[in-house]
Amino acid sequence: MSSTYILTLSCANQPGIVAAVSSCLFAQGYNILDAQQFDDTETNSFFMRVVFDPASPECNIDAARSELDAIATRFKMRLSVRDTRQKRRVLVLVSKFDHCLVDLLYRRRIGEMDMHIVGVVSNHPQDALDLPDLGMVPFHYLPVTRETRIEQEAALWTLVQETGAELVVLARYMQVLSEELAAKLVWRCINIHHSFLPGFKGAKPYHQAHARGVKVIGATAHFVTSDLDEGPIIEQDVERISHRDTPDDLIRKGRDIERRVLARAVRYVVEDRVLPNGRKTVVFID
Amino acid sequence: MSSTYILTLSCANQPGIVAAVSSCLFAQGYNILDAQQFDDTETNSFFMRVVFDPASPECNIDAARSELDAIATRFKMRLSVRDTRQKRRVLVLVSKFDHCLVDLLYRRRIGEMDMHIVGVVSNHPQDALDLPDLGMVPFHYLPVTRETRIEQEAALWTLVQETGAELVVLARYMQVLSEELAAKLVWRCINIHHSFLPGFKGAKPYHQAHARGVKVIGATAHFVTSDLDEGPIIEQDVERISHRDTPDDLIRKGRDIERRVLARAVRYVVEDRVLPNGRKTVVFID
Amino acid sequence: MSSTYILTLSCANQPGIVAAVSSCLFAQGYNILDAQQFDDTETNSFFMRVVFDPASPECNIDAARSELDAIATRFKMRLSVRDTRQKRRVLVLVSKFDHCLVDLLYRRRIGEMDMHIVGVVSNHPQDALDLPDLGMVPFHYLPVTRETRIEQEAALWTLVQETGAELVVLARYMQVLSEELAAKLVWRCINIHHSFLPGFKGAKPYHQAHARGVKVIGATAHFVTSDLDEGPIIEQDVERISHRDTPDDLIRKGRDIERRVLARAVRYVVEDRVLPNGRKTVVFID
Amino acid sequence: MSSTYILTLSCANQPGIVAAVSSCLFAQGYNILDAQQFDDTETNSFFMRVVFDPASPECNIDAARSELDAIATRFKMRLSVRDTRQKRRVLVLVSKFDHCLVDLLYRRRIGEMDMHIVGVVSNHPQDALDLPDLGMVPFHYLPVTRETRIEQEAALWTLVQETGAELVVLARYMQVLSEELAAKLVWRCINIHHSFLPGFKGAKPYHQAHARGVKVIGATAHFVTSDLDEGPIIEQDVERISHRDTPDDLIRKGRDIERRVLARAVRYVVEDRVLPNGRKTVVFID
Repeated sequence: MSSTYILTLSCANQPGIVAAVSSCLFAQGYNILDAQQFDDTETNSFFMRVVFDPASPECNIDAARSELDAIATRFKMRLSVRDTRQKRRVLVLVSKFDHCLVDLLYRRRIGEMDMHIVGVVSNHPQDALDLPDLGMVPFHYLPVTRETRIEQEAALWTLVQETGAELVVLARYMQVLSEELAAKLVWRCINIHHSFLPGFKGAKPYHQAHARGVKVIGATAHFVTSDLDEGPIIEQDVERISHRDTPDDLIRKGRDIERRVLARAVRYVVEDRVLPNGRKTVVFID
Repeated sequence: MSSTYILTLSCANQPGIVAAVSSCLFAQGYNILDAQQFDDTETNSFFMRVVFDPASPECNIDAARSELDAIATRFKMRLSVRDTRQKRRVLVLVSKFDHCLVDLLYRRRIGEMDMHIVGVVSNHPQDALDLPDLGMVPFHYLPVTRETRIEQEAALWTLVQETGAELVVLARYMQVLSEELAAKLVWRCINIHHSFLPGFKGAKPYHQAHARGVKVIGATAHFVTSDLDEGPIIEQDVERISHRDTPDDLIRKGRDIERRVLARAVRYVVEDRVLPNGRKTVVFID
Repeated sequence: MSSTYILTLSCANQPGIVAAVSSCLFAQGYNILDAQQFDDTETNSFFMRVVFDPASPECNIDAARSELDAIATRFKMRLSVRDTRQKRRVLVLVSKFDHCLVDLLYRRRIGEMDMHIVGVVSNHPQDALDLPDLGMVPFHYLPVTRETRIEQEAALWTLVQETGAELVVLARYMQVLSEELAAKLVWRCINIHHSFLPGFKGAKPYHQAHARGVKVIGATAHFVTSDLDEGPIIEQDVERISHRDTPDDLIRKGRDIERRVLARAVRYVVEDRVLPNGRKTVVFID
Repeated sequence: MSSTYILTLSCANQPGIVAAVSSCLFAQGYNILDAQQFDDTETNSFFMRVVFDPASPECNIDAARSELDAIATRFKMRLSVRDTRQKRRVLVLVSKFDHCLVDLLYRRRIGEMDMHIVGVVSNHPQDALDLPDLGMVPFHYLPVTRETRIEQEAALWTLVQETGAELVVLARYMQVLSEELAAKLVWRCINIHHSFLPGFKGAKPYHQAHARGVKVIGATAHFVTSDLDEGPIIEQDVERISHRDTPDDLIRKGRDIERRVLARAVRYVVEDRVLPNGRKTVVFID
């Protein structure tokens, strides 16, 4: 059975890119199902995402890849082509609050998220989480103290490698990754921060928001970098609040924002919709 | 001085369209600044919008147009290329409520809307509108009664032709156009309906919404067809209300929704972002 | 241990209501923690919700109730006082799509929803639902065919009585209740309709929305009446879509809207925030 | 002709407040049309807004005021009663961007905002603003340089006193008020900041937002304090953006957010819906 492919590319902007890519796919017998592109005129960068499938059984993806690689070399592109039958492998980290994890598990179960969850890691034991049911997903208990942090991060890194995890999702994981681990996971690790960044960085953002008296709260999904709460933003959303809302109300309302923002961000990443652009992201939304 | 061009096209979907268009523009020496496309797999239709400008002074837009026309013929496309220096000519019709008109005039004044307002038509005299200042924009008073409707529509049609209006905007114009005039203005006439269609068609939608007890109200900008309130939708937006809101509150809150929905729709149309797709529209949003 | 009480009342508007109620609670030694009121000037109706707790251990809720009942008689009020320690008993009905049910179960599990789920009923067998874990909640399989509808509704009504269910939630339950059952459950049965009512009543609303080409979709939680999709609306919300969204995309995006709209509506009801107002509702939002 | 009155009060929370106020109004022959209240359990503060009108021509507002003042003394309240026939007097300050000013003028013209605009002040000459028409509203040109700032603020303060301005609105006024003037205008001066505070304080917030790569932008209306961009927030709103939006696009989209946020905040203040609560506000929204 034939598959669908997703091509993503980025490079310095220059004439002829679209012509080269689309002509190549046409010549190789592929149909373009969807294409989105973006010129960042500030940085003179070009970004593109193309979804394509074979027009006939004669199509040869290896030949297409080879031609596309030649184009990538010519235009000095970062280019990747992914067969959508190969689902993204995702490792989810969680601490005590499990609403994002439960939501991701549910979405995967009903087939909404095209990914394999290859494991769940927590710094709390499984019974502390009171998880409904992980099914076949392995659970890893990696408690972290100041003393054990380095070795536990090593264990985590080993786990990433052993599971082949392409994406690590911090689903309300309350430990800060070390600079070293953040560097190893660059553009491969997403965090959900429970505020509308750049407002209310750091700890207890809902309490900060309550103290400041804002009228709208939000959540932010971003790539993890060594600079806490400063990573490139993938998705944000907000909800209106009022003076009547206590910090507990904000936490409750925030859960709904967090889980939908993180779910969107994870979906965008596993569907290759998110391309790095320096400190920012290009997100080709459907 | 060189210009920027907007190409829009639609046709039956078939392999090679993007390759043909992008290769042509590349060969003619043009840079693609932005491109968006859409495959409607239900109707097997393809839609594309490309913004391009010349890479050098040697570029010849007539030559490019000629090549593009050849492509259009080959692929049986509806294709148009517009020089953005030629602003769209827009005629605005209004009755007693002038918030949408005032808003459009203001946006044009500060340069937000790339259009010429070639005239304002009302079925009420100018002093009834209490308009702040139309500047150089001619005002036409075309009162409509059951008896005069046919001749006034003829006058309106003459005005459209004389002013070269490419777009007619019903900015809370409370007269229903005849089937004949609607047909003449097909895909060239926008209405703002003060409800979230298809809910609350017809008269007094805010009163209908109040009576039904909805918790959210909205507005809809759509192309005018002979079938009242059934035209293809361009843009919609909503706002939350509560049981405390009277019909007058809804009218007040609705004004804000109406003017921003209509302004967006007009901007999308004058920037060639809206392509007809049967009973629906493709809107390439920025 | 002392408790908190919620008083709700409605009656014809007349002078002195607030003075009578607040003076009574003050005289009985209760603190008013929260109070919201609404005058419907159209129908000359008055609605009030008061949260109060005892200022001292000497307070006697029976005495307070007796005084309040006297006020209710004097003003011809519908008045109720509920001890918040007595959680609302809720029966949830579901068909094949379980996202709303799973969401309600999760919210109850983490203590967000102040209710007992006394049972889950489905017209499909439990394994068809592939539910993660109902815990202690009994599951009832009540398959419905044209022939068995009357007896199954009888079984359902028996279940309502046996479980003491004060609220029945149709969480994407795809069977229409008979006029008789709807009448028995008046103001006690909530449905989530997967469209922004009054738009797209009836079957397959997302397909209707796609065919109409709307730019925003929504969901509506409403009380069930014998008049399908016409019951008093409790809560609505929406999300923006585009021409790119297929009916399947709308179904996916809609799930998120449905579950948050239904969860809010159920929370409002179990917290006595929703008061009947003819064909409409008064919702005292926090 | 009789009038409607708005009572606002705040004090330390204590039993009997609502009973005292509502019994007084009832005894004096007034109808309560609307009442909202809020207990801030953190600070043990109580806030209330009551709208009332006379039930008969015999009602005497002076007698009612006198009784209410006695209650205020007893409960140590800040209490005010305003006759809604006396419209709030508002002074609007503006620099080069006039979208908020134009919007406020329009809303006042159509009767949406219950206020007198007693003057417009700018640090730019009137023709620089290209204002459509101020009608009868006096324009004051008060250019500010580092040298003249003190004397111009003195002129501004004189203007506030001469016009009897109860509210000063900084409608994109780009000069920072001195600590002294801010102190004189405490709780009487509103600013619109073109970001979603506390994110992007200070200059060029849209450029900051673009550089940070946020996915949502916003605007904030707040009371002016000597601590720049730290004043109590009255209203905020947001809009979704994407990687495609340039700083100019954010400025354009921001204009719509700014004018609606400022208009709401001004309306809330002139309708006595906003009560000070330390660093925060209580806003009794309709």
